[in-house]
Parts: sequence; structure tokens; C-alpha cells
Amino acid sequence: MKGKVIGEGSQPLICTPLVGINEEAVVVELASVLAKKPDMIEWRADFFQGIANTNDVIALGNKIKEIAGDMPVIFTIRSIREGGQPIPLTDSQAIELNEAICMKTSIEYVDCELSNTLLHFEQLRKVAQEHGKKVIASYHNFSSTPSQEALFQKFTQAETYGADIGKVAVMPQTLEDVLVLFSATLEAKNKLKIPVISMSMGALGAVTRMFGGVFGSSVSFAVGQNSSAPGQVPIEDLEIVFGIMKKTMGNEYNDGIIFE
Amino acid sequence: MKGKVIGEGSQPLICTPLVGINEEAVVVELASVLAKKPDMIEWRADFFQGIANTNDVIALGNKIKEIAGDMPVIFTIRSIREGGQPIPLTDSQAIELNEAICMKTSIEYVDCELSNTLLHFEQLRKVAQEHGKKVIASYHNFSSTPSQEALFQKFTQAETYGADIGKVAVMPQTLEDVLVLFSATLEAKNKLKIPVISMSMGALGAVTRMFGGVFGSSVSFAVGQNSSAPGQVPIEDLEIVFGIMKKTMGNEYNDGIIFE
Repeated sequence: MKGKVIGEGSQPLICTPLVGINEEAVVVELASVLAKKPDMIEWRADFFQGIANTNDVIALGNKIKEIAGDMPVIFTIRSIREGGQPIPLTDSQAIELNEAICMKTSIEYVDCELSNTLLHFEQLRKVAQEHGKKVIASYHNFSSTPSQEALFQKFTQAETYGADIGKVAVMPQTLEDVLVLFSATLEAKNKLKIPVISMSMGALGAVTRMFGGVFGSSVSFAVGQNSSAPGQVPIEDLEIVFGIMKKTMGNEYNDGIIFE
Repeated sequence: MKGKVIGEGSQPLICTPLVGINEEAVVVELASVLAKKPDMIEWRADFFQGIANTNDVIALGNKIKEIAGDMPVIFTIRSIREGGQPIPLTDSQAIELNEAICMKTSIEYVDCELSNTLLHFEQLRKVAQEHGKKVIASYHNFSSTPSQEALFQKFTQAETYGADIGKVAVMPQTLEDVLVLFSATLEAKNKLKIPVISMSMGALGAVTRMFGGVFGSSVSFAVGQNSSAPGQVPIEDLEIVFGIMKKTMGNEYNDGIIFE
């Protein structure tokens, strides 16, 4: 792969979603997003009204890559059960569409929910591998935050299923839930081989988008033109925070320490 | 008290230490620090070479308040056992000096380590109360991070001793330690009546100076001219991060949420 790679580099990649409903909207959105220079793009194809026509999806996928150049793209069909839009495809058809994207576009990443059957998952993973694409195994919970054990189990399942990256996005009800998300992410960072992505959504969880990287999250989703989930922070603000974090964690301010 | 008060307001107060060794150095440092507009000042009097002369300490304390105006000041003699400078005073003499500061200056806060005897602590607290000053009961550990239970116990002890504020500053060895500090702080915020201040020191803990407010810390110590402990972040950077945080947590970015 050219361009930046999830799990490499010293700070999280900033990923911005495209949620346009048709080609024109997506292209306009992409131009606006690219001007803000994120590290990568996620095309949320469940928002695309032409999703039932495989050729249209492939054509737009290729167009996005043509415009995005080396900037990596994630192709995502978020299911309605995990917070996505209603689409006229069965799970099986959605997997096939992901396979077509792997085979017929240069899009680098596909998202596959852990709630898919293992059979579907392995089918997609095989096609992705054959075409040099990576699979993000994801879990979303828009109502609550499961226990640290349960979240760590999701990351572990992603690795066991042979995914290249594990992703967990959950809704905190309390600040304790935000710390649970951090703890599970740190545990995954320390115990698993694959890189992970994690976030607590909503206003309470916004801190996880800013400093989740410290605890092991390798991507932060940030608002470009439109937000695709609650709590996302504008790219510009995220870049400022990451810059300050890097200086600080990198010890730049820790010279001349005065204490015995 | 005029000016800002610890534990009030929607985000942590930014406090900048003065670590000059004589009056001239402290006054120059103060001018430089005030230009950066922190919310409050901590005078680390253990760095002051004139500490054995009570009249000199009172005179400089008054001078600092004269220059700082309504900006609140903390008077701190950090003991050598908790990371401070060697001073020619016994614990008993240090308590008496704190009392003199309460009686003869308009400095608003005095710091008293929890490692003092309860008798010393109560003696200072009584004088502070009589003069409308507040006591910060503090615990420092420059080598490690005790368990969440142990840290929560320190905050609880501060409340039990009748302190106005509890403070815990510890050194993380791992990122898990940083999460322990956040958890103990959040527990104290939820269970205790007094406001608390907390931080993980060093590069690993720098995130706690930036985001500790989310989990209940009411003050963040930031570098003005000189740092007084490892991991402190420059005021300017801290203000930028706090501003972004406030917008985000305040839901400013959470309009137009797109998910079902």
C-alpha cells in the first residue's frame, strides 16, 4: 500500500467520513474534506442511494480513489443494527459488494462487522487478502458500553477471525465507561498483535477521539464537512491537539526538570 | 475571596509555579508568568533561599500578592520527602511559617502535605480558617502510582482532616497507572464533597494535565517560565486544549448527528 497505514506511525491517523447520498454529493464532500488534509477517508456507502447497483458503487469507489490519490480509503457499509442507514441489501449481498470493492477498485480497507457470520467474514477476508486489501473487524454499540472484558473480547475476536485491524465504538453513559474503553484499548494494545481503533461516542466520549491514541487507538474519526457519529471533533482541532500531545509525550517540555 | 476559586467553574484552573531562589528572581518570574495569564500562581517557597527568615517570607508573600492582584496564590513548602527542595526548617517550623502566611499576608491558599502529623495539620487548618484561607491537603509520590483504593484513600483523608481541597500527584510507570489516577480522581469527584486536584507526572502522565479536568481534577499545573515538576505543559498549549475540549464536551460539535 502507498500512503499511510493504520497501526504505523507515532500518532493516530485522522479519518474523515464521506456521507453523501449520491455521486455529486460525495464528490463535493470529498473535495471539501481533502482541503482539510486528513490522513484517510472512510466512504460510508450505506448513505449512498445507489448502493443496490454494484456497478455504480464500483464506479464511485474508483472515482473516490482517483481523486484521493495515495490517501487510503475505507469502504464501509454500516448495518442498521450497528448504527448505519437502512439499505436494500441483505447481509450476504453486502459482503458480496465488499468483495467486489476489493476486486475491482483500489480502495485499501473494507469494514466488516463482527456481527456478521464467521462464514461471511472468512469469505470476505479471503477475497481481501487475495487482492492485497485489509479488513477492519468492527463492533458498534450506540446505547451503552459493555465491560472491559467484553470489549477486550471483541478485539480478540477480530484477531481470531484473521482481521487486520479491530475496531470498537461504544456509547458511554458515564465517565467510568470512558475509562473502561481506554482500559480495554490499552489491554488490546498490550496483548494483541493487530492494531486497534476505539472510541467512546457522544460528548462524554469526545476525549477518546483526542487522546485515544495514547492508550492505543490507531485512528480517530474526525468531522470534515459532515459528522457520521456523535462527538466527532473537527480535523483542524484534532490536529492541534495531536501536535501538542506529540510535543508533550515526546518529552519536549520535560527538559530542565526541577525536582529531587 | 476575590478572583477564581478552586473547584468552581467548568474547567480546571491553570496554575503556574514560581520557583525563584530570591526576591529578585521571583519578581522577574512573576512578571513573565503574569503576561501568560494563568488562573492562579503557586509560590514554591521551598526554592526560596530566604525561607528561614519569616519576615522575609512574609514580605515577599505580600509583594507577590501586591503584583498578582486578584489572582489567587498558593503558598507551598514542598518537603524534601515529597519531591521538594532541602530547607533548613523542621516540619514544625514549616507549619508555623504557613500559619504566619495565613495571618500576615493575603495569600489565599496554603499547601499542607498529608504526611504531616494530624496535630500539625489541625493546627494549620484552624489558623487558616480563622483568617479565611483555604488548605490544600496534598500527597506526592515521585516514584510510582499506588492503587486506585490507596489514591482514593488519600483524597478521603484530605476530606476527613478538614482540608478544603485534596491533591494527589503521582508518577506513572505504565499507561495503566495513568488510568488508575483518572479512576481514583473520578471516584473522589463522585463520592467526596471537597474539590480535588490530581496529576500523573512525567511524559506518560502529560495527558492528565490536559484532560484531567474531564475526570474531576480542578487545577492543572502548567509551565510558565520554569517547570516545577516533570510533564508540565506550557500555559498557551493548555489553554488551546482546554478551549477545544470545552467546545467538544459542550456539544458544540454534536449538532446534526447522523445515526439512527
